[in-house]
Amino acid sequence: MGRPGWRVPPQPVASSTMPLVVQKYGGTSVGDAERMRAVADHVARTRRQGNDVVVVVSAMGKTTDDLLRLAGDVSSVQPPRELDMLLTAGERVSMAVLCMALAELDVEAMSFTGSQAGIITDTSHTRAKILEVRGDRLREALAQGRVPVVAGFQGVSTERDVTTLGRGGSDTTAVALAAALGADACEIYTDVTGVFSADPRIVPRARRLPRVSFEEMLDIAASGGRVLALRSVEFARNHQVPLHVRSSFTWEPGTWVDEEEPSMEQAVVTAVTHDTSEAKVTVVRVPDKPGLAARLFRALADAQINVDTIVQNTSVHGTTDISFTVPKTDLRNSLQVCRDLAGEIGAGEVAADDAIAKVSLVGAGMRSYPGISATMFQTLADRGINIEMISTSTIRITCVVRSDRVEEAVQALHAAFELDS
Amino acid sequence: MGRPGWRVPPQPVASSTMPLVVQKYGGTSVGDAERMRAVADHVARTRRQGNDVVVVVSAMGKTTDDLLRLAGDVSSVQPPRELDMLLTAGERVSMAVLCMALAELDVEAMSFTGSQAGIITDTSHTRAKILEVRGDRLREALAQGRVPVVAGFQGVSTERDVTTLGRGGSDTTAVALAAALGADACEIYTDVTGVFSADPRIVPRARRLPRVSFEEMLDIAASGGRVLALRSVEFARNHQVPLHVRSSFTWEPGTWVDEEEPSMEQAVVTAVTHDTSEAKVTVVRVPDKPGLAARLFRALADAQINVDTIVQNTSVHGTTDISFTVPKTDLRNSLQVCRDLAGEIGAGEVAADDAIAKVSLVGAGMRSYPGISATMFQTLADRGINIEMISTSTIRITCVVRSDRVEEAVQALHAAFELDS
Repeated sequence: MGRPGWRVPPQPVASSTMPLVVQKYGGTSVGDAERMRAVADHVARTRRQGNDVVVVVSAMGKTTDDLLRLAGDVSSVQPPRELDMLLTAGERVSMAVLCMALAELDVEAMSFTGSQAGIITDTSHTRAKILEVRGDRLREALAQGRVPVVAGFQGVSTERDVTTLGRGGSDTTAVALAAALGADACEIYTDVTGVFSADPRIVPRARRLPRVSFEEMLDIAASGGRVLALRSVEFARNHQVPLHVRSSFTWEPGTWVDEEEPSMEQAVVTAVTHDTSEAKVTVVRVPDKPGLAARLFRALADAQINVDTIVQNTSVHGTTDISFTVPKTDLRNSLQVCRDLAGEIGAGEVAADDAIAKVSLVGAGMRSYPGISATMFQTLADRGINIEMISTSTIRITCVVRSDRVEEAVQALHAAFELDS
Repeated sequence: MGRPGWRVPPQPVASSTMPLVVQKYGGTSVGDAERMRAVADHVARTRRQGNDVVVVVSAMGKTTDDLLRLAGDVSSVQPPRELDMLLTAGERVSMAVLCMALAELDVEAMSFTGSQAGIITDTSHTRAKILEVRGDRLREALAQGRVPVVAGFQGVSTERDVTTLGRGGSDTTAVALAAALGADACEIYTDVTGVFSADPRIVPRARRLPRVSFEEMLDIAASGGRVLALRSVEFARNHQVPLHVRSSFTWEPGTWVDEEEPSMEQAVVTAVTHDTSEAKVTVVRVPDKPGLAARLFRALADAQINVDTIVQNTSVHGTTDISFTVPKTDLRNSLQVCRDLAGEIGAGEVAADDAIAKVSLVGAGMRSYPGISATMFQTLADRGINIEMISTSTIRITCVVRSDRVEEAVQALHAAFELDS
């Protein structure tokens, strides 16, 4: 279990043959001066254990919120280019200060902005995509025995403007650097001790998972597990970068996210996840004609709305109801789009429901075990929890239920599939 | 009086023929959200009056102090490269936020870091010198009808590292850009209304000077006038950039700093300045042999100590006393250097005195008026103020007096030379 490969004991190896680990520290991990020093200690310790280290840092604690508040106080208009310029000040502070803390421990560190680290992005301000990582300066610093400390979340566009990567950006920076530098592992330090079989605040007996596959992690992230951003997991899978999600407060080993090993005995169900951030939209009495669903979801996509679960019932009396879920933040826009279209296509009213929640089972073993969904539905039925929508992937089953019943649903499923520790 | 050349009334001129003004706003000028909006208003107004504008901003209010406090909390070791990375976060915030405020006024602004603005410096972190200004991106932005908003105080070194320009750095950025872009004027906005004939807190009847020459301004800055950094005035003089020092709180015309006009009637004395930031060091009984003074001041220079006024008395009994002033912040180092050397060269003890102050008269007319120094010394003598050291340049006379008498000395001289309004 796990990938101990790079955690070799101290030995007199040449720099070029030392294992390389990328360590990413989120905002709470570097939230204040004391946390900064704790992180520096850990980086120094990792080096003493015989590893080369590249560090990626987020902005300290609530810095980003403070900067956004300032911007809001000054102006109601916030051009995306300037928003990026503003927000990138946050990592600048944390990386410089971390380098100082490392200097005090006699570790020669060197900070790099996204631009200096060679993170080249497209020109989509506030949600840029990484196009290329030119790691020359980082490789040079490593060859000189230094610890490069890189600003997460930011890059420089092909137009030479400062960009940010949007949600989950710092994790993506870390994974991209690990891929570009051929790192042996990418450690994501956060304020939880790993990926759990369910949210421990809801299920006290939830277990930390020592290992999950990329596929499982993708479905966990997509269905409400908040530890890693979906995007960084996709990047890690595509570039075969083993991730190690762990706590910067306990420094204990956490959860490895890695390739599925065919030889391994797979748990049927790995985790129960839930998500209360979505709302449901229903367009009723949609005429049962080809192409209408396509028009609806094309219009939503054009409005940059991320539609999640979609359910369409079998047509009766020549019309059908179409339901789907969207992030609550997109609900207003979604209703607007649907109402505009409902008139055009001769559908009935458009209903919104923001008191829903999703509960999901995720597990690579599901592929070969039939009957999981039946057990899931029965478990919920036994507790009188009504299922409003169902969607499935090869390794995930998701049910939409009333949001005030979701915690009970998670607890019941966690026990039913014998995930309790 | 003044240089009204660029302040033409609104007229439909092509962008390329519009006058160009560089406006620099210091930390108090952009100290909070309300001040930011006031500055944006003024930039928009300057544009409406038919000027192209390039803005240079400092970090907001106490940002720099806050960042330094954070660094001190985290680490006692602050590598200069990382200190520069840290401090440059300050301007990044103010320039982005100012661009947002301008966007709200429908002025298309675009922020530029020192690096993006093409401010190329040497590699001396925390006190870098500008080597070159590559103004291409700013020219391009101007040609597109935009207002470039540039981070003051910062640049990028020939090694591609982020640098800061040290004290007075934002003024220097503004002057350097004005020179590189061939601006018609460089406006330095601050929290005072201009350059005064004396510090108005000490001399309530001090007058705002509508115009001073570069030479006078250099001596005013060097002798304690804190409105402009010496360095930026030197840069302006060397590149013939007319400066306009004025208030961002009243927006009234302030003081023009420009070439001396030979045709002008020159005031004999322009200003009385004072400086309480220095201390006096005396090395007593220095053997009167050639080369000893040179060794002493070479040793001080090697220790990066800025020696100001130097006085050596005529030798009696084969030894002499050498006195000089240094910034109080350098006093401890200076004593160390002098005491080490005094033993080597056979001198006596080294005495320190930090209760001194300098009072100076500055005026371009002094060159042709004899007797100014006599009047100065008599004025001080009449009030029983003892003169401890004297030094002169062609347009300045400086006396070192007890620091508790300096305000009285300034008031007396301001009245004696009929500078009161």
